[in-house]
Amino acid sequence: MIIVLKPHPSPELIQHVVDRIRELGFTPHLSQGVSRTIIGVIGDEEKLQVQPLQAIEGVEQVVPILKPYKLASREFHAEDSQFEIKGIKVGRGHLLMIAGPCAIESEPILVEIAEKVKEAGANLLRGGAFKPRTSPYSFQGLGEDGLKILKATGERFAMPVVTEVMDPRQIDLVVKYADMIQIGARNMQNFDLLKEVGRTRLPILLKRGLAATVKDLLMSAEYILSQGNRRVILCERGVKSFEDSTRNMLDLSIVPNVKGMSHLPIIVDPSHATGRPDLIPAMARASVAAGADGVHIEVHSCPEKALSDGPQALLPNQYAALMDDLRALAGVMGQKIDSCEGVTV
Amino acid sequence: MIIVLKPHPSPELIQHVVDRIRELGFTPHLSQGVSRTIIGVIGDEEKLQVQPLQAIEGVEQVVPILKPYKLASREFHAEDSQFEIKGIKVGRGHLLMIAGPCAIESEPILVEIAEKVKEAGANLLRGGAFKPRTSPYSFQGLGEDGLKILKATGERFAMPVVTEVMDPRQIDLVVKYADMIQIGARNMQNFDLLKEVGRTRLPILLKRGLAATVKDLLMSAEYILSQGNRRVILCERGVKSFEDSTRNMLDLSIVPNVKGMSHLPIIVDPSHATGRPDLIPAMARASVAAGADGVHIEVHSCPEKALSDGPQALLPNQYAALMDDLRALAGVMGQKIDSCEGVTV
Amino acid sequence: MIIVLKPHPSPELIQHVVDRIRELGFTPHLSQGVSRTIIGVIGDEEKLQVQPLQAIEGVEQVVPILKPYKLASREFHAEDSQFEIKGIKVGRGHLLMIAGPCAIESEPILVEIAEKVKEAGANLLRGGAFKPRTSPYSFQGLGEDGLKILKATGERFAMPVVTEVMDPRQIDLVVKYADMIQIGARNMQNFDLLKEVGRTRLPILLKRGLAATVKDLLMSAEYILSQGNRRVILCERGVKSFEDSTRNMLDLSIVPNVKGMSHLPIIVDPSHATGRPDLIPAMARASVAAGADGVHIEVHSCPEKALSDGPQALLPNQYAALMDDLRALAGVMGQKIDSCEGVTV
Amino acid sequence: MIIVLKPHPSPELIQHVVDRIRELGFTPHLSQGVSRTIIGVIGDEEKLQVQPLQAIEGVEQVVPILKPYKLASREFHAEDSQFEIKGIKVGRGHLLMIAGPCAIESEPILVEIAEKVKEAGANLLRGGAFKPRTSPYSFQGLGEDGLKILKATGERFAMPVVTEVMDPRQIDLVVKYADMIQIGARNMQNFDLLKEVGRTRLPILLKRGLAATVKDLLMSAEYILSQGNRRVILCERGVKSFEDSTRNMLDLSIVPNVKGMSHLPIIVDPSHATGRPDLIPAMARASVAAGADGVHIEVHSCPEKALSDGPQALLPNQYAALMDDLRALAGVMGQKIDSCEGVTV
Repeated sequence: MIIVLKPHPSPELIQHVVDRIRELGFTPHLSQGVSRTIIGVIGDEEKLQVQPLQAIEGVEQVVPILKPYKLASREFHAEDSQFEIKGIKVGRGHLLMIAGPCAIESEPILVEIAEKVKEAGANLLRGGAFKPRTSPYSFQGLGEDGLKILKATGERFAMPVVTEVMDPRQIDLVVKYADMIQIGARNMQNFDLLKEVGRTRLPILLKRGLAATVKDLLMSAEYILSQGNRRVILCERGVKSFEDSTRNMLDLSIVPNVKGMSHLPIIVDPSHATGRPDLIPAMARASVAAGADGVHIEVHSCPEKALSDGPQALLPNQYAALMDDLRALAGVMGQKIDSCEGVTV
Repeated sequence: MIIVLKPHPSPELIQHVVDRIRELGFTPHLSQGVSRTIIGVIGDEEKLQVQPLQAIEGVEQVVPILKPYKLASREFHAEDSQFEIKGIKVGRGHLLMIAGPCAIESEPILVEIAEKVKEAGANLLRGGAFKPRTSPYSFQGLGEDGLKILKATGERFAMPVVTEVMDPRQIDLVVKYADMIQIGARNMQNFDLLKEVGRTRLPILLKRGLAATVKDLLMSAEYILSQGNRRVILCERGVKSFEDSTRNMLDLSIVPNVKGMSHLPIIVDPSHATGRPDLIPAMARASVAAGADGVHIEVHSCPEKALSDGPQALLPNQYAALMDDLRALAGVMGQKIDSCEGVTV
Repeated sequence: MIIVLKPHPSPELIQHVVDRIRELGFTPHLSQGVSRTIIGVIGDEEKLQVQPLQAIEGVEQVVPILKPYKLASREFHAEDSQFEIKGIKVGRGHLLMIAGPCAIESEPILVEIAEKVKEAGANLLRGGAFKPRTSPYSFQGLGEDGLKILKATGERFAMPVVTEVMDPRQIDLVVKYADMIQIGARNMQNFDLLKEVGRTRLPILLKRGLAATVKDLLMSAEYILSQGNRRVILCERGVKSFEDSTRNMLDLSIVPNVKGMSHLPIIVDPSHATGRPDLIPAMARASVAAGADGVHIEVHSCPEKALSDGPQALLPNQYAALMDDLRALAGVMGQKIDSCEGVTV
Repeated sequence: MIIVLKPHPSPELIQHVVDRIRELGFTPHLSQGVSRTIIGVIGDEEKLQVQPLQAIEGVEQVVPILKPYKLASREFHAEDSQFEIKGIKVGRGHLLMIAGPCAIESEPILVEIAEKVKEAGANLLRGGAFKPRTSPYSFQGLGEDGLKILKATGERFAMPVVTEVMDPRQIDLVVKYADMIQIGARNMQNFDLLKEVGRTRLPILLKRGLAATVKDLLMSAEYILSQGNRRVILCERGVKSFEDSTRNMLDLSIVPNVKGMSHLPIIVDPSHATGRPDLIPAMARASVAAGADGVHIEVHSCPEKALSDGPQALLPNQYAALMDDLRALAGVMGQKIDSCEGVTV
């Protein structure tokens, strides 16, 4: 940590800061120039970061050196993490291909979609039973009935399944049906929810919030990891921006950025990021080329009648064509997409 | 709702869209030009908005006309809303002046701060018992112990108190101690939490999310209102932006913007918005001049030792000087700040 | 400047960085911990800032301490600057009230508007002769004919006039007619244009760019100041954001922020910032309460027939009512609005 | 164009709007419901777009249907455009690979870099002679001396060259030395400069502004096209955002987005977008997979001594390794990178 004092600090101020640092058990290193003084503090920065030294009158700036996350960092775990979700590998060259409808609407519709996406090469089935909708008057999901349909459909096609939880009170229910739990973008900083899913033994798909920096995302992962759950998969799904022709702005540079800072796998969801089926395939291809550990795509067999987010879904045949492209690109990148053959039902 | 078709639509497409609209019980109005066709649909737009007509191949754009919120709208309730919080009025010219520390740290510290802010003219005391911290290793709040301190201190000074809930499971506890419940920015779209606080009988202070538009904020208010709780106070506290010299960007234009769209009171929190004590007083003054229904300020008697957000707190004497300015400006604006004399303990 | 090395730096790297700093004529201060090393360099930071030390393999971060602007800084000029524009004062409690149409359309229309805004209390007349329009097919301004109308109208009402230049080749022409030159938001980083207006002897109204930080704005002011022209007035006019119900987002906190960093006056333009006449009066009031040195408002006597930006103009009677409010608020703030009586035609 | 009136419009208002539309030579189509009235106008929207119908009291919203750009649109030119720059093709499957230093510093340094990037497969050499620097005290470029070095080096290696112009007065000089002219991000809405380069016969590389939407970018291209110059290449180079770990945010979705709206080629510059050599290769790969028509990369043989933007440059060997990846990905995408063999010196 570096403490920069305002120009021409008084000897009393310097002494006060030095005393505070010593009180906290650290050794200050002073660098003094004609008008400027900076104080370096090297040591366990965690203890320092919670101290509001910035609030001392006369301190201009406090510059942290160490990162505020630990378990999520590359320093803590140098090698890329790799997990298995019921036999499907993700990380270290294994791509997770999640597909399915936004919401679970009925068993026949989900079965139809699941059959098609599995055939195309998806290795994980998604579907929402609890839906975060901006309007209280929109379809809110089928709840437990939806979870039952999801589990049954996953077993029928030997695909692991993922679904979102929005409320800590839903977790006990969801763990009975899901193979992976999704934390949606709007709940990325719902810290109580993060702690609770950190106590489950299921892998967690943590979506980036709409105004979250990469550091914020890793701090939220840290909440889950700190509870003992090490299977966290990050997911980029676009951030808010001024561009009004797409739903959000896909920030693909977060993929190599995360790879430098953390060992955790990161996948990309171009469906929510762009909100436009005409842009999704290009962005899915770009995600694989950027080094993402997987792609999350919404697919619906009749988007114009979907109960949620229909306008952004790909048709099953569009998804199949895209998967052909992704396999070819993954080949060039030295990566592979596991099939569902080894899934342990 | 207006449906704009892509250039040179086929007669089959036009018929398909017209049929879908009729199926839904509406009358389509066609306007056809040489290359362009638009279809107007007038009626109960709520029913239409959940239909993904945008997903029909050949539809270029769907433009809603009616607003997606209803109970929050000016159309529903023409006059400004006014509420009482234990005798303190807010709305229609009555300003709510909330002050207090970020977190409740101990009874002596809270008592010291409460005494000072009440003397300066604050009419509502704030303090966090459950703290949303970006790091799992930071101080997370005193929990129920904090709530007890808050309630006791409020009663001692005859000030109503407000505190944040982050988890639906905390609500039963918090209603025993608080006079108003705060929903923080990070939970503005935690829809389960919104529904739950909508079922309480306490007024709700709903803070704008960091990437929420004014429409998003009103939709979240609608979640609470739709559960039967009509006492919702909105709060602007800054949004994410590229400007890196302030914590967030205070969007003060939301004050008159909300006033045009909704009857709900809206207050401003310049402490979280700017994160800088040197900017807070000017932004508090600007808030009153912009027509805000109140101002929310963090105050601490020793910011450099505060357990949370110390660097952004005003000192008690800075707060007192600011309140003098705000009273003068409120006078010019034809508004007043109620004292705590009439508080019903 | 502080140079933070990556964890566990080799002795060779430390020596390489130390050597580079010494080569440049500075003294490095080393602080070494178990895993971390930081190197402080105190001295003439300007010389250092142009050195890409960040590019050295093994350097994690370079943290500047000194500000990159100099003539614009408070350190250079401690007291608030105050200028006169043909007898109208701005700064140190004197508010500049600029009003007029977006574009100069004809002499009768400008005369009608000028008469009304002067009567209401405006002390500077604006009007565009060269218009930056996003479409090449929109009205581009009357050019020199417009400048002649502006000058004649200003003289008729004894009001100084301001107009925009977009191209260095227009400057010789514009200085013959204008009393102040405006640099528009889109040209805030048109560095050749900044240098050229820096060589004139007219005061410059420098508008903040749509994606400019406060530091960027001060750096652009520095370009003008460094050419010898010290009469620079900054202007906040909104920045790009995700909020889609206003044209831009007015960042009013830049007013006290600039006051802390710089001695230059700063005014606010709520017309371009919000693009909505229903929000302009509240934001103009907030600007004065925030401590702005003036307000810039577009006024048109028939907005629905204006050739440029009609939808955002106030009507003359709306402007007059607003000026009454602003005078009252200025009184509370200890500020005054000079009349045009002392204007030296 | 669709005109939405406020709820419960008076018959007089409806008549007034209808009259205005008829005056302008259009036929209004009325759709009236219980509370809502909308008016469709089909026809030459250009003429309508310049009319401020939004300013009519009682009009809630004006929704344009036709796009404000014409020559840049897919409707105007259905097939992808393809240009040649001295024999190097761009568009329709031919990738433009631009590489070189940020600024031209000296002939030996440029020759060294040019040799390496050509060997690696770059087919166009870049280098700045006029540099837009945020500080007036930073290196501003070598001017004409730099242009001479650039031209000589391009001829030596049979590579076409591109360089930036910032001021209309530089154009006559630059056309003597350059094969393509770059308009930088800060000048994307410098409309006088756009018109002037539109009058040259050189291809123009138009970089997206930091706060420009895709529509803004196409409107700026329209300025150039409307002067008769049809060889415009768009370039994404990142936009401003809240993410503070990268210089800007690369918005790769603009690539397929532009492809849907326009026939113009679009390339990507990950160097300026990310500002970080560790992220550039992944983003360059993603650009090709997203369907970009080329990639623009800054390369320097000694970044730590570069006079401009050193920290973001790739080393020549990093560039060569990246080009191997890009060739493989281009193969999968059915695209090719032309060598400089056919260059017509």
